[in-house]
Amino acid sequence: MAGGDDLKLLGTWPSAFVTRVKLALALKGLSYEYAEEDLASKSELLLRSNPVHKKIPVLIHNGLPVCESSLIVEYLDQAFAGPAILPADPYERAIARFWAAYADDKVLASWATMLIRGKTEEEKSEGKKALFVALETMEGALAKCSDGEGFFGGTNVGLVDLALGCQLSWLKAAEVMSGEEFLGGDKTPLLAAWAARFTELDVAKAALPDVDGVVEFAKMKQAKMAAAAAAA
Amino acid sequence: MAGGDDLKLLGTWPSAFVTRVKLALALKGLSYEYAEEDLASKSELLLRSNPVHKKIPVLIHNGLPVCESSLIVEYLDQAFAGPAILPADPYERAIARFWAAYADDKVLASWATMLIRGKTEEEKSEGKKALFVALETMEGALAKCSDGEGFFGGTNVGLVDLALGCQLSWLKAAEVMSGEEFLGGDKTPLLAAWAARFTELDVAKAALPDVDGVVEFAKMKQAKMAAAAAAA
Repeated sequence: MAGGDDLKLLGTWPSAFVTRVKLALALKGLSYEYAEEDLASKSELLLRSNPVHKKIPVLIHNGLPVCESSLIVEYLDQAFAGPAILPADPYERAIARFWAAYADDKVLASWATMLIRGKTEEEKSEGKKALFVALETMEGALAKCSDGEGFFGGTNVGLVDLALGCQLSWLKAAEVMSGEEFLGGDKTPLLAAWAARFTELDVAKAALPDVDGVVEFAKMKQAKMAAAAAAA
Repeated sequence: MAGGDDLKLLGTWPSAFVTRVKLALALKGLSYEYAEEDLASKSELLLRSNPVHKKIPVLIHNGLPVCESSLIVEYLDQAFAGPAILPADPYERAIARFWAAYADDKVLASWATMLIRGKTEEEKSEGKKALFVALETMEGALAKCSDGEGFFGGTNVGLVDLALGCQLSWLKAAEVMSGEEFLGGDKTPLLAAWAARFTELDVAKAALPDVDGVVEFAKMKQAKMAAAAAAA
């Protein structure tokens, strides 16, 4: 990192999107200031830095804000030296972006519906089913780009590893809370081995939130949802 | 384009996402084969090329499929010479990607809800309101990157121009069908002038679907939705 670079990350500790940015910063070996946001009372800095969506994460680099976790990861990869997160080849890059988007749109959306967003038991149950399907699909993707030893990015951690890896504490929390096995069993053995390798990385140890903490956070969100539904 | 490049686009003519790819191909000066898909009976080639989502558009380059319109545009920009669609600077690139995503997530989603996806009059009305808000927000973005003469990409057409430009026939169809003025009036004068400049471009003339055709298509979709709702 150049001496003059000033990096500040606005986030909340349980957010998988924030975790993704922390993982990318760690991979690049960048030091940064982290500011925990209270989403019930957002900071002036957050509102000024992301006036359109008013959402975390925001990375502020020398005063310039970059919003949206996937865009922040691409920005960090292009703006800083260190291990490449995206492949150099245009076609491999498109494939990596495809699976990173799949991890967001299908995997993350499914456990979020199952644990928090689902308004009825039926919706939550649909979320759980969709999660099994999404992880099985990612098992197939992993089988194509790993020999059972490495990562989605091959020998090194890449874009897809960050996109799915940032969700691992939530996936484990979902296992704790539902009694289901999402990573492992007959259907996703490669993914289970990948998850074990990923969580052992120093960057993951530094960035992934504590699973027990995520379970508590999810239960608190569920209780709030239930109270709001009862009041409606 | 290198002599050995074989490009095939699978799409449907009214799709704004397909239009975006056609615009990018035209900007890059690339010739390609176009195959119109029947979504009620998808081709084996589409199912084989996009087995995960089974959606159009898919661009097949020398036998290798690239899915998702935004990824196809980035792929074309990196893989082929010709005018740059994305800025070279990492920060400007992040900003362009931010607004292209906004055009998809807010503008496109709003008129789609208003014209087709909305299940009730209330939902459709919410879509219309959201469309006005989204376009006003994009007016602000345009004010920051254009002097009232150029494009979101500055002097040249760029990523954001493609993301919003591919929606212009649908936005005009929305005006015809609702009697509202979405581009123009007091709130979006810059956007109206931009839209007039964009539609005069040769690439737009070659790629944008006919507005009357889109109106007919939207009415047909609405009739199908109404029939399905009545049968339920």
